[in-house]
Amino acid sequence: MHELVITSPANPRLRALTGLRRRRAREESGVTLLEGYEELELALSAGVRPQSLFYCPELMLDPDLQSRVVRDVRAGGAEVVRLGRAAFEKVAYREGPDGFLAVVPSVGRGFEELTLPADPFLLVCQGVEKPGNLGAMLRTADAAGLHAVVAADPVTDWGNPNLVRSSKGTVFSVPVASASTEQTLAECRSRGVLVVAATPDTAVEHTDVDYTGPVAIAVGTEKAGLTEDFMAAADVRVRIPMTGRANSLNVATSAAIVIYEAVRQRRASAR
Amino acid sequence: MHELVITSPANPRLRALTGLRRRRAREESGVTLLEGYEELELALSAGVRPQSLFYCPELMLDPDLQSRVVRDVRAGGAEVVRLGRAAFEKVAYREGPDGFLAVVPSVGRGFEELTLPADPFLLVCQGVEKPGNLGAMLRTADAAGLHAVVAADPVTDWGNPNLVRSSKGTVFSVPVASASTEQTLAECRSRGVLVVAATPDTAVEHTDVDYTGPVAIAVGTEKAGLTEDFMAAADVRVRIPMTGRANSLNVATSAAIVIYEAVRQRRASAR
Repeated sequence: MHELVITSPANPRLRALTGLRRRRAREESGVTLLEGYEELELALSAGVRPQSLFYCPELMLDPDLQSRVVRDVRAGGAEVVRLGRAAFEKVAYREGPDGFLAVVPSVGRGFEELTLPADPFLLVCQGVEKPGNLGAMLRTADAAGLHAVVAADPVTDWGNPNLVRSSKGTVFSVPVASASTEQTLAECRSRGVLVVAATPDTAVEHTDVDYTGPVAIAVGTEKAGLTEDFMAAADVRVRIPMTGRANSLNVATSAAIVIYEAVRQRRASAR
Repeated sequence: MHELVITSPANPRLRALTGLRRRRAREESGVTLLEGYEELELALSAGVRPQSLFYCPELMLDPDLQSRVVRDVRAGGAEVVRLGRAAFEKVAYREGPDGFLAVVPSVGRGFEELTLPADPFLLVCQGVEKPGNLGAMLRTADAAGLHAVVAADPVTDWGNPNLVRSSKGTVFSVPVASASTEQTLAECRSRGVLVVAATPDTAVEHTDVDYTGPVAIAVGTEKAGLTEDFMAAADVRVRIPMTGRANSLNVATSAAIVIYEAVRQRRASAR
C-alpha cells in the first residue's frame, strides 16, 4: 500500500494538526488530538476510531510491537501518515514524544443524551478550569467505575490536549457530557440522582452520607468551589475532615476521596 | 529604617537567588526558596523564620494588607529587600508572581530524629520523582493530620522549588524526613509501626486493613511502584479496587485514597 511520508516540518498538513490545539479549530472540525502509544491503545480499546494517525518509527520505544497498532488503525480505515523525526517533533505537544499522534472524533455530549443504569454513580465538575485537574479526575473516574463525568458550565472543552494528556486517554473510556448548571441539576432531579456537594462549609462529613443509590458527587472550581446556587440546590453538602494548617486539598484529590468513600459503600452494599 | 532597594534585573544579589533553584546550591547553603504570599503566611504560622525576604509592592494583590507581613518578617530579624517589578520578575519562578519571595532554612531531617506520638500516622514515599506529586501528597498529609512524611531513597530534595510551590507551603507545616529504604523499614519496625504498602499486585483491598494503630502508608515511584524489597518487608500489601480500562491512579491520588480510609477508621475508633 502506498503510504504518505512527510519529512519537512514546514509541510502544511502539520500546520493543520497544530491548529487543533486551538479550541475553535476543534469545535469547527469536531476532532481533537490524542498523543501517545498507551493513550491510543486505551482509546482504541474503548472503541475510538481515529480519523488519521501520524507516526514516527524513530521515536517509538518498541517499533516491532508498536507498529502493529499502526497496521490496525490503517485496517480500520484511518489515513496513516509516516513522519520524519523533525516533522513529528513539530506536531508533538508533550515532552518526550513517543511517535504516536492521532486525530480522533471529539467526545462529550449533552447530559440528557447519556445512557445510564438504574443506580448511576456520577461526578459533576462545575466550572473546573485546569485541564490537569479534569484529567486527573477522569483517571479516578475510570478507576472507580463511574458511569459518567458531567462538566457543568464548563470552562475547558473535553478535547483540550492538556486534558486528554493528563487523563492518560481515559477521556475516551469514561462517558463525558457537558451541560449548564441548571440543566445538570434538573437532569439529576428527573433521574432521581442524589446530588452530594463537596464544600468546606458544612458540618456533615463525607463519610456520613449514604452513596449506595443513584448519586452524583459534585466539586467546584479550584478557587471558589461550587456556586451558591449549586450548593443551595444540592441534596446534601459534605466536607472532608481536615486538621492541617493549609485547609486546601486539591480539587482532584478531594473528588477522589469522596468518590472512593462511595466506592467503599457501594461495594460493601453489593456483597 | 534604611531599606535596600534593587531595581536592576542584573543585580548580582538576584543571581544568587536564582542560583538556589539548583539542588547543589541549596545543599551547600542550607536554605531554599519560598514564593507566594499565602505560602509565606502558612510557613510563618508553622514557625519558619526566613533568612531574607524579597518583595515587590507593585505585584501585590493587596499592598495595604500584605505589607504587614513584610513588617513582621523584618521585626523577626530577617533582611528585607524591596525589588522593582523587572527585578522581581527575574527571580520569580512561577507564573503570575505576587510579589513575595523568601529565603528560608531547608527542612527535612533523618527519620530517627523525628519526634512522634505513641500511635504515629505516617506516609512513606519511596523514590517518587515528580515534585508536583510530592507537593500534592504534602497537601493531603497536612489536611489529614499525618505526623510526618518520610522520603525513602529520595530522588527530589524537600527544598525543590517546584515541590515547595505545589505543596502550597505545607512542606513547612508537615514534619518531613529522608532516609534510605533500609533505614525507613528498620525505623518503622523499631517503633512498632505497621507498614502498609500500596500496590496493584495483591488481593487485599485497602479498606480491609486496620489502620487505627501506629501505621505507615507507603507508595512507590510513578512508573514502577514500590521496590520488590520494600514489598517483601512490608507488613501488609493493599490495593485500591479499580474497575476501569486504564488501571492507573496517579500516585498522589492513590496515597490520598488510602490515607483518608485510615482517617475514617481512626476517627471512628476515637469516638
